Amino acid sequence: MELLKQRIRQDGEVFGPDVLKVDRFLNHQLDIALLQEIGKEFARRFSDCGVNKILTIEASGIGIAAITAQYFHCPVLFAKKSQSKNIAGEVFSTKVQSFTHGKLYDVIVSKKFLSPADRVLILDDFLANGAALDGLIDLVQQSGATLTGAGIVIEKAFQPGGDRIRARGVRVESLARIAAMDPNSGVTFL
Amino acid sequence: MELLKQRIRQDGEVFGPDVLKVDRFLNHQLDIALLQEIGKEFARRFSDCGVNKILTIEASGIGIAAITAQYFHCPVLFAKKSQSKNIAGEVFSTKVQSFTHGKLYDVIVSKKFLSPADRVLILDDFLANGAALDGLIDLVQQSGATLTGAGIVIEKAFQPGGDRIRARGVRVESLARIAAMDPNSGVTFL
Repeated sequence: MELLKQRIRQDGEVFGPDVLKVDRFLNHQLDIALLQEIGKEFARRFSDCGVNKILTIEASGIGIAAITAQYFHCPVLFAKKSQSKNIAGEVFSTKVQSFTHGKLYDVIVSKKFLSPADRVLILDDFLANGAALDGLIDLVQQSGATLTGAGIVIEKAFQPGGDRIRARGVRVESLARIAAMDPNSGVTFL
Repeated sequence: MELLKQRIRQDGEVFGPDVLKVDRFLNHQLDIALLQEIGKEFARRFSDCGVNKILTIEASGIGIAAITAQYFHCPVLFAKKSQSKNIAGEVFSTKVQSFTHGKLYDVIVSKKFLSPADRVLILDDFLANGAALDGLIDLVQQSGATLTGAGIVIEKAFQPGGDRIRARGVRVESLARIAAMDPNSGVTFL
């Protein structure tokens, strides 16, 4: 998606070999007009899938998922990173290692909101090692829902998550795939 | 907002005297069509304010803020509940006591994204004791931005936050104000 790549080149900041900050437009401040274009592109790519629910994970996936869901005319379900007392009753639960925070999280969704009748599209901002996406796939599989695929805004294709999860047979569509990055030369896309 | 009150009556679940679960449509699963109507109502109420940035707090404010920002044609900034290594540099910081989780959080936004040029509308899903809203107001004031007001989806008006913050001179617009609630008789609106 050329508009997104241009924006990453313009406003992304590279720190070291593997940290890309996109907090000007994607995961702290949100450029809503850009998210609308991202949403339309996901809708185009997954138009043939009968998606009736979008699943993401708090926090930075939520804005992307909410805007995108408008083009699928379906609800969003966001997985939560720890059990709070406002989630009563039964949940599907999995464990996810956070690259950003260096912690192991419990990630949960209420069983009320995922069932074998659902055709689920997973959305997230980043795919790198694939830990969060593994967790979300696990939640879908526990529920018996159909996984139609995963839409990723930015894939660090030099890290193993994308290839590994595609090799499992999951359709992964990434709007910008980064081949390499460096604080001096910037970002190189596949 | 009558559509919202109807939905709370239909799908909200009351636990004890002060816990209202709205996870079917507002803060776990998100009904995007309802969020669009909520966004339009906030845009109507704050149409005269020159809002150029919407500020919310992760996680459950993000979907509301992202959808609503479309009607203001402005970006969203979401405050983060703890410092992660992907937020480098200078931040405005405040402390917030979470009612839901029983914890004291550091809540931060990057100084890059709030300045005296900004006219900020704060949005959040709930207002009860007002701790989160106090924190967001503090961040706006630290930045020198103009606070145009706060838009709240559900105010527990039997708790003191709303009255206290209005008494500080902040314009608070709540789309559903709950006078009382009870597991047997349900929710009574003001």
